[in-house]
Amino acid sequence: MNSPRFTAESSSHGMVERDFTVGEVPGVLWSPSSGADRAPLVLMGHGGGAHKKHPAMTGRARQLVTGCGFHVAVIDAPGHGDRPRSAQDEQAVAALREAQETGEPEGPIVVPYNARLAELAVPEWQATLDALQELPEIGAGGPVGYVGIAMGTAIGVPLVAAEPRITAAVFGMMWPDALFEQAGRITVPIEFGMQWDNERIPREGSLALFDAFASKEKSLHANAGKHFAFPRFEADSAARFLVRHLGGAVTALV
Amino acid sequence: MNSPRFTAESSSHGMVERDFTVGEVPGVLWSPSSGADRAPLVLMGHGGGAHKKHPAMTGRARQLVTGCGFHVAVIDAPGHGDRPRSAQDEQAVAALREAQETGEPEGPIVVPYNARLAELAVPEWQATLDALQELPEIGAGGPVGYVGIAMGTAIGVPLVAAEPRITAAVFGMMWPDALFEQAGRITVPIEFGMQWDNERIPREGSLALFDAFASKEKSLHANAGKHFAFPRFEADSAARFLVRHLGGAVTALV
Repeated sequence: MNSPRFTAESSSHGMVERDFTVGEVPGVLWSPSSGADRAPLVLMGHGGGAHKKHPAMTGRARQLVTGCGFHVAVIDAPGHGDRPRSAQDEQAVAALREAQETGEPEGPIVVPYNARLAELAVPEWQATLDALQELPEIGAGGPVGYVGIAMGTAIGVPLVAAEPRITAAVFGMMWPDALFEQAGRITVPIEFGMQWDNERIPREGSLALFDAFASKEKSLHANAGKHFAFPRFEADSAARFLVRHLGGAVTALV
Repeated sequence: MNSPRFTAESSSHGMVERDFTVGEVPGVLWSPSSGADRAPLVLMGHGGGAHKKHPAMTGRARQLVTGCGFHVAVIDAPGHGDRPRSAQDEQAVAALREAQETGEPEGPIVVPYNARLAELAVPEWQATLDALQELPEIGAGGPVGYVGIAMGTAIGVPLVAAEPRITAAVFGMMWPDALFEQAGRITVPIEFGMQWDNERIPREGSLALFDAFASKEKSLHANAGKHFAFPRFEADSAARFLVRHLGGAVTALV
């Protein structure tokens, strides 16, 4: 087993940022500048069309690292960020743009595209977790959480279903169609976000996916509003959920 | 307009407790021992069979007073706490006990009983709010919130529908049958709690009641588990919701 190969390091405002690769997959690990010998690790899955250092990722990472004392890792999904795009990726992106322009439903394109990415991404995440747990500041056997909405849920649900080292997860904002079977194999605590008036993902589908998780501890957070109105305070709630289940201390959250 | 008549005062761990009456109605006002000239006021409705100083009320009050700097007031509902029980109250309580013993559904008893209590309680709450706003440390025109689940929702939904001074409310855990019309007249931000596997209140009814609120900002929190498994962390979430909408500062919440 090998540690991740670190390729760059910087630091600002109490947070160390280290770029790494595990095999061909580029990632980033954010850690507290000072503090615990060992701390819980949170894996974050980015959204479709985004990448490991998208502002949504760096913002959440800062909150989880400086607010809760966690390590946070993100890797570029296949066809995203610094990774090459395949012909299939290009076709899916083109089809999605066309659907958005013509007002056709996006689900029939996103669901199979993301399911294919998940098949590639799950073993990549598992190899990344293997490597990160070689680091002394993380270690094997420590608490591991997962946070990912939208495409981060399309990849995260199969990952958490397959990976017993992940003991708490935050999901939401994804078409349920390809995820029911794997959700039914997840028993760890989850928090699941949805938009009550989502114009893209049908309400009944989101409720049915939440219902499908086998977890004894699960919380649905449904907020009024359309898809892109997903509120910022859900990131605060997710941080508190992770602190409850992974340990750690909330020091800087409102 | 008259201030409340204070009948007792005590203080412990940063919180002042003052018993009061407004007309015939006994209540309690909890306030920070030191601090702001004026602070937001949170009205809390207790549950069926409980009273103004039930541990669920004192626990939440401590959190809201010492954690957020709010004033918190509770009054005994008609037929509850220090108030006389009418023959109708006695009949409803007896019918409810019998239903619980025989396993008959409770909704058909609770819904009309609580609807009748709400008719009495709404003007009592309005007179109490009039009186409390005469106090210099609360004042007229300041932010006012409401928190009440179960019977506190049965009374709170008609109250908030009728009372424009209340600008944010936390509800949940109540049969929806008598509340749809008034929920449709509520436009202030709400947070609504339900138990996903509630054996007493049907899931679809709770989802339909959440849907009925006309509020542009509303959040549904559905947690796995039966009726009495309603989790403690929802009280923390309610406190944060009130801080977001009434002002104040979270200083002591995890």
